[in-house]
Amino acid sequence: MSATVSPLAPKKYVKLPALEGVRIRTAEAGIKYRNRTDLLLMVFDEGTDVAGVFTRSKCPSAPVDLCRANLPGGKARVLVVNSGNANAFTGRKGRETTSLTAKAAAAAVGCRPDEVFLASTGVIGEPLDAGKFSHLLKDMAKGAEAGLWGEAGKAIMTTDTYPKYATATVKLGDADVTINGIAKGAGMIAPDMATMLSFVATDAPIAAPVLQQMLSAGTKGTFNAVTVDSDTSTSDTLLLFATGAAAKRGAPRITDPKDARLMQFRRALNRILKNLALQVVRDGEGARKQVEVTVTGAKSARSAKRIALSIANSPLVKTAVAGEDANWGRVVMAVGKAGEPADRDLLSVWFGDIRVAREGERDPDYSEAATSDYMKRDEIRIRADIGLGRGKATVWTCDLTKAYVEINGDYRS
Amino acid sequence: MSATVSPLAPKKYVKLPALEGVRIRTAEAGIKYRNRTDLLLMVFDEGTDVAGVFTRSKCPSAPVDLCRANLPGGKARVLVVNSGNANAFTGRKGRETTSLTAKAAAAAVGCRPDEVFLASTGVIGEPLDAGKFSHLLKDMAKGAEAGLWGEAGKAIMTTDTYPKYATATVKLGDADVTINGIAKGAGMIAPDMATMLSFVATDAPIAAPVLQQMLSAGTKGTFNAVTVDSDTSTSDTLLLFATGAAAKRGAPRITDPKDARLMQFRRALNRILKNLALQVVRDGEGARKQVEVTVTGAKSARSAKRIALSIANSPLVKTAVAGEDANWGRVVMAVGKAGEPADRDLLSVWFGDIRVAREGERDPDYSEAATSDYMKRDEIRIRADIGLGRGKATVWTCDLTKAYVEINGDYRS
Repeated sequence: MSATVSPLAPKKYVKLPALEGVRIRTAEAGIKYRNRTDLLLMVFDEGTDVAGVFTRSKCPSAPVDLCRANLPGGKARVLVVNSGNANAFTGRKGRETTSLTAKAAAAAVGCRPDEVFLASTGVIGEPLDAGKFSHLLKDMAKGAEAGLWGEAGKAIMTTDTYPKYATATVKLGDADVTINGIAKGAGMIAPDMATMLSFVATDAPIAAPVLQQMLSAGTKGTFNAVTVDSDTSTSDTLLLFATGAAAKRGAPRITDPKDARLMQFRRALNRILKNLALQVVRDGEGARKQVEVTVTGAKSARSAKRIALSIANSPLVKTAVAGEDANWGRVVMAVGKAGEPADRDLLSVWFGDIRVAREGERDPDYSEAATSDYMKRDEIRIRADIGLGRGKATVWTCDLTKAYVEINGDYRS
Repeated sequence: MSATVSPLAPKKYVKLPALEGVRIRTAEAGIKYRNRTDLLLMVFDEGTDVAGVFTRSKCPSAPVDLCRANLPGGKARVLVVNSGNANAFTGRKGRETTSLTAKAAAAAVGCRPDEVFLASTGVIGEPLDAGKFSHLLKDMAKGAEAGLWGEAGKAIMTTDTYPKYATATVKLGDADVTINGIAKGAGMIAPDMATMLSFVATDAPIAAPVLQQMLSAGTKGTFNAVTVDSDTSTSDTLLLFATGAAAKRGAPRITDPKDARLMQFRRALNRILKNLALQVVRDGEGARKQVEVTVTGAKSARSAKRIALSIANSPLVKTAVAGEDANWGRVVMAVGKAGEPADRDLLSVWFGDIRVAREGERDPDYSEAATSDYMKRDEIRIRADIGLGRGKATVWTCDLTKAYVEINGDYRS
């Protein structure tokens, strides 16, 4: 948690409403940080369905292993998240910690071990002592309340400069259902999946396989389309819980992902995922500007996304944005290095609505002054048209500033 | 050219000897820089053989196109290099510039157009006016001298903080032959091939196909194994010229790459390529430390190199090195994100000779103090053993400092 809040933070934090079937408690366990909460417990009513998406790292953290193992059951009763220590690359000790924590959590809420989900975020490679916090879970479960979403968002922060919230209420059948989400970044953010922890819950009655389909599809253009520094965490975890409590108010239980009644819900979920993913980017370590990179005219959507990520991950593009320099030559460089089909002489590049290059050279109408003006904005859009096909993709990143180096040059100290 | 020389610069610059068959001249053409040379002419005696390796960017510069077109002829009489403008992504104008420059160069030395080689380095996307310097070539050719290698190294610099030289004299048959090389970096450095310009010449009589075989093989573990920022330039050019003048002193003409008499020469060439490549890394923009990354125990050499580059290109690993923080967790993260076969619980990591992690967790003998001491050095070695096979690779990079961001945040201004 940083003393200086990102200039791209929301002007006002959205307040998440209570969600039936979810109760929350946070605590100061003193795992690493002092004078702040670092432990989150979410308790779900019986029957809650769950879906998840995790890091593709070949070296995932112990909690990711545990979530993956429990996910096929499709049911969740409790989530425990700690910040300050990722419990990643902690070997046998790491597994002991997740095992002890899961047992304590199951006992605290009275559920089966495979209904427990865990996430840890912070330093990698330091053993995490379950003894530091597992004894707190029982009292936390007792004291858990429906309205504490604001606290939940704060307890999971690491180098984040602000908590990240999103909410929506939509119709499912004739009933109102609500979706609440929280997330944390802020470095080691890259697909797939974009680093971070994010927990989304709804009172809609939706079966786990349907949740999973929606979540997997929804991450593609959202959490898997944001990158801060091209580094992929060992701990990336996105979980979606559905308590089903809205069934009492007449919401239909959805068991088929093709159910037409899901349309509004699906859209709202995607908006929330995108909203949270963008908040993560806007709080990227040292970020001063949000950058939206769109690639059009590529051979395929897949190719477009690779080129877009090549641009979004290029240190030279990102430092140019930080320096408010419309250095489109570096965009060309990043297109060229992506390894995807591209023809220099068909390429066009835009900053915002200003076309700076077309057909492989500087636009004859290029105005340095107008483009420089544009670069002063908080939100920069870069577009590259490859001119070869119809493939299209958009990804989001932030600029690369001296503050990023500063934050990461002494993260552990 | 920067005012502050990299702390990793050589303590003493090696002086390159005159090389029979090569004459050199530099000039201040005022293309972008003031009060420094920015134009290099190298004239080669008739019969000089040439080989080259170029950027794999899909958007190569106009001079790269020209070199590629002329390379199959296998003969070179003149090389023209300018700094300050890369003549990249300059469309039709770019081709006009290379065409005009090549004509002027051919006229200046009296050779065929396909014996001309060009390279440009600097800003991308700005038209380069051949009229600014092509008229100088004739007088430069007249005034060219054998001993001006030192000047050659300086004229091609951009953000380099020091010129890069390497030389070796070895036996070919019974005759001494010399190899001289110069190079420039210093950002946009990544395989393949590592960005930069490098020009190597020898008086050995070696046929172009043999040169090409040696150069292509030699770049793999040298120029294609260094990375500063993962960004690949549109202009990467490495040319190797063999004037054959040593034949007069009894050196045998080599026409078969398997010729056993080449052994010493090949080794010396590889040493020079590695020496120049490392000088490029040590002058990486903002570099304060050289980092050698070795991956052992991977499934294959190819897999090892990918993992090594994932580590070497990770902003979080590089900022940790800058902060003298032995954050081996980030090394694990970079192994995990490489997408190559890896098993967390078989992984070991070393900083220098200190094993910090083994079998998926912190080494029981880990000493934070000893490791922190090690991180204070100028040259850091990181090794990761994957524990799966026998694949091995070494790559080199530098740390990521605030100075990198500073340099690249206002490069064009």
